Amino acid sequence: MSGPQVTLAQGGGGLQMQELIARELVPACDAELGRGLEDAVVLPGAERLVLTTDSYVIRPAIFPGGDLGKLAVCGTVNDLAMRGARPVYLTLGLIVEEGTELELLRTVMRSVAAACAEAGVALVTGDFKVVERDSGDGIFANTAGVGFLRQDPPPSLRRARPGDAILINGPVGQHGVALLAARGELQLQVTVQSDCAPLADLVGAMLKAGGEGVHALHDPTRGGVAAALNEIAEASGVGMEIRERDFPRDAGVDGACDILGLDPLQVANEGKLVAIVAPEVAEAVLKAMRGHQYGAESALIGEVLEGPAGRVSLRTALGTRRIVDPPSGELLPRIC
Amino acid sequence: MSGPQVTLAQGGGGLQMQELIARELVPACDAELGRGLEDAVVLPGAERLVLTTDSYVIRPAIFPGGDLGKLAVCGTVNDLAMRGARPVYLTLGLIVEEGTELELLRTVMRSVAAACAEAGVALVTGDFKVVERDSGDGIFANTAGVGFLRQDPPPSLRRARPGDAILINGPVGQHGVALLAARGELQLQVTVQSDCAPLADLVGAMLKAGGEGVHALHDPTRGGVAAALNEIAEASGVGMEIRERDFPRDAGVDGACDILGLDPLQVANEGKLVAIVAPEVAEAVLKAMRGHQYGAESALIGEVLEGPAGRVSLRTALGTRRIVDPPSGELLPRIC
Repeated sequence: MSGPQVTLAQGGGGLQMQELIARELVPACDAELGRGLEDAVVLPGAERLVLTTDSYVIRPAIFPGGDLGKLAVCGTVNDLAMRGARPVYLTLGLIVEEGTELELLRTVMRSVAAACAEAGVALVTGDFKVVERDSGDGIFANTAGVGFLRQDPPPSLRRARPGDAILINGPVGQHGVALLAARGELQLQVTVQSDCAPLADLVGAMLKAGGEGVHALHDPTRGGVAAALNEIAEASGVGMEIRERDFPRDAGVDGACDILGLDPLQVANEGKLVAIVAPEVAEAVLKAMRGHQYGAESALIGEVLEGPAGRVSLRTALGTRRIVDPPSGELLPRIC
Repeated sequence: MSGPQVTLAQGGGGLQMQELIARELVPACDAELGRGLEDAVVLPGAERLVLTTDSYVIRPAIFPGGDLGKLAVCGTVNDLAMRGARPVYLTLGLIVEEGTELELLRTVMRSVAAACAEAGVALVTGDFKVVERDSGDGIFANTAGVGFLRQDPPPSLRRARPGDAILINGPVGQHGVALLAARGELQLQVTVQSDCAPLADLVGAMLKAGGEGVHALHDPTRGGVAAALNEIAEASGVGMEIRERDFPRDAGVDGACDILGLDPLQVANEGKLVAIVAPEVAEAVLKAMRGHQYGAESALIGEVLEGPAGRVSLRTALGTRRIVDPPSGELLPRIC
């Protein structure tokens, strides 16, 4: 008799994944440092070190707007940036399926180098493994990142406060829709590009403008903005309201989501952040964001409320209100 | 027409892997920090940080003497230890195949926690991905490790000098033979256990005894002692002679290697180190090793010579001499 098995839905970035991580993985973590929800951990000591890791299993490895190599650098750089860290060092572990075209490996590594150069991080050590055919799928990558805190206290998912403004740096859903198109899963012609980008420099400009008033930052990757905002609302014990009409839009994303019945708020991004900032710095931070190449379309999309704790609601374009639930399982497997 | 493809042999830890890494991966690395041969990099700055990463794709995930979780902690802890660092923080990235028994994940995570506790490192952050059936193989793990230098200058593959003694902390080949047995690839009954163990505490005792006289440390994993010594000889521009009769022996390993025609010097270890130490501290370091649980069978197995640069030779038990070549490709795929 066979016991319970791991499902694709448990890798989707939603509630099922959070439950599995909390139950099976967190008990092995350090009781003080490793039990938070944050994607990057701030370590004790004068070094003000921040540490993070992510594995990347995206399919296909090359997609409109990026590839596995660019993603593996940007994703980890962004996790450091969301804690207010300046990313400095990166490690890279590759697991390659036997028979993978060497040219794909070369493409990925060129992108790693280019993305490191843009993000200002140094790739300092790595590891290379090969597995048999059908025991992997092309190239899987893992990066770990080391950064140094830019300010103390750093932004944290726990620091959102009632009255804070909710900002976003552009239209949501581009990465997920670009991936669907690249997989041939869209019947329509779509020219949406992934938003994959390193956000550390943008965050640096935001912190310069808003200082400690930048309370929380989160990159809405797997599970999209819906998951990201719910995580902050939950961790900070606050409510949130966001307004559909204030979101920057991408017509290609909107069209694809309409036809497929997807909620753009649940679709993955790789170059977006949501920022929870004190009202008195909101305007300055928004201005700094709009002055940056990765924030030209930034907008104020809502506010943090006293409660109900953990609840995110959306004022629709029609004026109705609905609850933005965190996604449960997996909409799009292997999106990152 | 299809171009060149990645082969299993290129993941084997031998010359083919070194060539691929040097040609395809190193160009993406930081020109100053990331171009060395070491498994862990010492970073500039007052923090005396040491950083390393490894992915683990071992098959089967549970083997005599350990499992994937123990290995993923010990392997990375040992890479830090070989640079003279005290391992402090660990990250963990898991890539799990859809349909993997949840009980395997639980076993692996219990071992991660136990190995972290023994090694004195804190698991501080992680990542969890799921891939479709036949796009992975059970669980792949990646760990990155952060440590702090115990002394400066640290041991380095480049610091071996003519006249140095070559030490080892026990019999070689146990991990590889245990894996072969676990895969059912041995016809004979073998009770060899993997030597998988965290060596940071042993290294701490060695550095205390030998200080800066501990010139180089290397863990003979993929490619075995043959690869490890050749790498040191190459990096330091020295020759080496080791003596077969002075090696500690494991009868189970010897028997299995005889029957399979394997050279124990090329078989992987996961709880062994070779140490290159100044002659004046050799006795003190050896004594410290023998007083440690992971060094009870330690021995002095040879000396560093002026040259020929990069050449390792073996004085056999019969008194003849042969060159110990670094392995080229892959003897045992997915040994770690």
